[in-house]
Amino acid sequence: MEENVSIQNLEIAPAALAQAMLSQHVADNVETLVHLEVAQAAQVLSALPVERAVEILDQPEFVDAPEIIASLPPPHAAALLNAMSTDRAADIVRLLPDDVRPVVTAVLDNEARAAIERLLVYPEATAGSLMTTEFVSVPASYTVAQTMEHIRHVERTRETVYAIYVLEAASKRLVQMVSLRRLLSADPAAPILSAARDTKPITVTPQTDREEVGRLFRKYDLLAVPVVDHFGHVLGIVTVDDAIDAILQEGSEDVQKFGGMEAIEKPYMEISFGEMLRKRAGWLCVLFLSEMLTASAMQSFQAELEKALVLTLFIPLIMSSGGNSGSQATSLLIRSLALQELRLSDWWRVAIRELPTGIVLGAILGLIGMGRITIWQMSGLYDYGPYWQLVALTVAAALIGIVTFGSMAGSMLPFILKRVGFDPASASAPFVATLVDVSGLVIYFTVALVILHGTLL
Amino acid sequence: MEENVSIQNLEIAPAALAQAMLSQHVADNVETLVHLEVAQAAQVLSALPVERAVEILDQPEFVDAPEIIASLPPPHAAALLNAMSTDRAADIVRLLPDDVRPVVTAVLDNEARAAIERLLVYPEATAGSLMTTEFVSVPASYTVAQTMEHIRHVERTRETVYAIYVLEAASKRLVQMVSLRRLLSADPAAPILSAARDTKPITVTPQTDREEVGRLFRKYDLLAVPVVDHFGHVLGIVTVDDAIDAILQEGSEDVQKFGGMEAIEKPYMEISFGEMLRKRAGWLCVLFLSEMLTASAMQSFQAELEKALVLTLFIPLIMSSGGNSGSQATSLLIRSLALQELRLSDWWRVAIRELPTGIVLGAILGLIGMGRITIWQMSGLYDYGPYWQLVALTVAAALIGIVTFGSMAGSMLPFILKRVGFDPASASAPFVATLVDVSGLVIYFTVALVILHGTLL
Repeated sequence: MEENVSIQNLEIAPAALAQAMLSQHVADNVETLVHLEVAQAAQVLSALPVERAVEILDQPEFVDAPEIIASLPPPHAAALLNAMSTDRAADIVRLLPDDVRPVVTAVLDNEARAAIERLLVYPEATAGSLMTTEFVSVPASYTVAQTMEHIRHVERTRETVYAIYVLEAASKRLVQMVSLRRLLSADPAAPILSAARDTKPITVTPQTDREEVGRLFRKYDLLAVPVVDHFGHVLGIVTVDDAIDAILQEGSEDVQKFGGMEAIEKPYMEISFGEMLRKRAGWLCVLFLSEMLTASAMQSFQAELEKALVLTLFIPLIMSSGGNSGSQATSLLIRSLALQELRLSDWWRVAIRELPTGIVLGAILGLIGMGRITIWQMSGLYDYGPYWQLVALTVAAALIGIVTFGSMAGSMLPFILKRVGFDPASASAPFVATLVDVSGLVIYFTVALVILHGTLL
Repeated sequence: MEENVSIQNLEIAPAALAQAMLSQHVADNVETLVHLEVAQAAQVLSALPVERAVEILDQPEFVDAPEIIASLPPPHAAALLNAMSTDRAADIVRLLPDDVRPVVTAVLDNEARAAIERLLVYPEATAGSLMTTEFVSVPASYTVAQTMEHIRHVERTRETVYAIYVLEAASKRLVQMVSLRRLLSADPAAPILSAARDTKPITVTPQTDREEVGRLFRKYDLLAVPVVDHFGHVLGIVTVDDAIDAILQEGSEDVQKFGGMEAIEKPYMEISFGEMLRKRAGWLCVLFLSEMLTASAMQSFQAELEKALVLTLFIPLIMSSGGNSGSQATSLLIRSLALQELRLSDWWRVAIRELPTGIVLGAILGLIGMGRITIWQMSGLYDYGPYWQLVALTVAAALIGIVTFGSMAGSMLPFILKRVGFDPASASAPFVATLVDVSGLVIYFTVALVILHGTLL
């Protein structure tokens, strides 16, 4: 990547920077501006031609947009919002400070205000919040030539013209989708529906979750999907660039949740210290409180610990192996469920695969563990006492039990969460590790009681 | 989702099933077929019109395609591959069994064979392996009208016609990209370049990693990106549907690696038992061997353990808190690095944020831990001995140290991995936990030696 103009030019006049930015891609302009202070960025934006400023604000990557819009005089801010695509304008208005929002919306065009307010109704992360109302639709009575003429006429003001929605002339209900490429080679005099496929169009509702929207784009190789209401009226469309943003945000959310924290939409450096603490402290405390059960478990085995202190040496090793195998299984399953490669009803297929997998993996680790104890004992590196062979056997047997339990618990947890209505991705690695830690201790000491009974215990 | 035709019709004749599938979306046909046995699916595919069979095989979600192609008579298999898009055909040929591949490629059309072999040169997960050679290009000497005429002529055989690549007439080097929508409203008699934007086109090389390809699609809102060689010749294009697949696979890989296993491309149920074991056992053994250091650390503190057995009670609690805070920090950072929100040189900005974050988070957990010990002691639930206040202080101080260390280690690890040329996403939660576990024990016992010196120790 080439260095940004901004980096070397923090000190140059906004007008000169604006001039230099004109020869760059809009997406690179965004990178330049987010590296500036908000006040500076606002100056540069004001020095740009309005058309370019609007293009920059239209980029969802321009995370400072709400702050900058809030810092401008309301008539100027409103003029920019009027000219922007409504979906992005609505996103910005949503994030304006509560005292600024009414002032700015009051001076918007009536048409823009109505469109933005319609979009603000839909909750975040739904198709309704992703959609734009700037799409191309024609009545079913149009010919191919009439449709082409209409597209030429409205092209400048539409987010995409590659998907054309054909509506029933009277009821305005969606009948079909026609792609522009099929129009090109169609007979100009033929009715528009002659260029349509014979399968019914893929649609979503405003409430459809963005994860499902992304999945449909992938499955059906879409460039846009119409958002329809109960009556079949098209409320707007979600375009593929917004679907990609949604897919990436879902991916980041999945990783962050799996890391054991609340999902964060903003880039790392944009999050305030307080917000960062809140997003992390919650889960950390919940996990800490659950993990306290390990202290209780240890307390209840205190008598055994006093008799056989050698057992404590392997507690971290054994517990972490259970957590690791659980974390592996969970990471596999949350993605399979997210991409709908597996359904809820497939849980038992997974269970009968994870059981032997866990046993074999546990046996591998058990053998390594026994080997380690034997080598240390035989070479005189450490003395595990007269019953070292039984201690080694205890460690190996406990590993098989714990790794099997970890794989089973880790793979079933996403199904259980989904079953009770939670996001399977809430099954974080620390969550699984905590679950397995407590049960792991109980398994370890129970195995020890059986194997070491009459010798150490 | 509606139930698949296949589910109720496993027993009906292939021809009847094929007939029923014709009224469905191709993507739904794929779902139907992957639920059948390979032999059955091959029969159904053969019963479909060739055009539809080719469309089905063209879907990357049709994971059984290589097996089915391998099971067909070579001339039939070759006929299907000839008609498919070359990028997908190459993917399938890549996965054919070694004894079948030469037999099938020998009976391919010369043109298809050459195109497929060109694509097979590029390693998986690069732009070269994702690209198709079926794009639209015109010489810069064309007018808008000539270009439109050319598009109409080749539309059927191109993967997308929405991006048109303008080549220098003599050298065939890429000059510009023109979008179809801009052509529609351009003056038909004007030269094609009059419809181009004035910024230079975004391109990739065949070696560009698919993660970077996805990032460019997101940043520049592309529908396709040209893959060019050193001389500026267009080798092919990557279309947005393939970019979405790449983004989703990278997302799954990130989650799986973060879960502490090797990435798996196939859906869960498609992986063989042996492959599943291999992908998981490797990392599990590495982590187990590293975690053995905890046993060594415990052994070296054996004298302290014998004097103050009460310390062992909190080992799992303290260790897991370090691992959890590290896992949170890592999950945040690997996504920020993957999406290029942060550069390698930003490491110190992250470090000076994570240090206070870790201290505050550790202090919160420390307070909870002290509270727990105090409540248990005062209420008589458990007796932590005469120095219980010092034990509580030890636990709290160790938690601050370990959570701070966990946050720092977890956030710096992705940077270190990236610096030495590894994928930052290799910094898995179990990896971080293991790293923090060993150091956590040392921190815990060191803090205990300081605070409990002269009393318990």
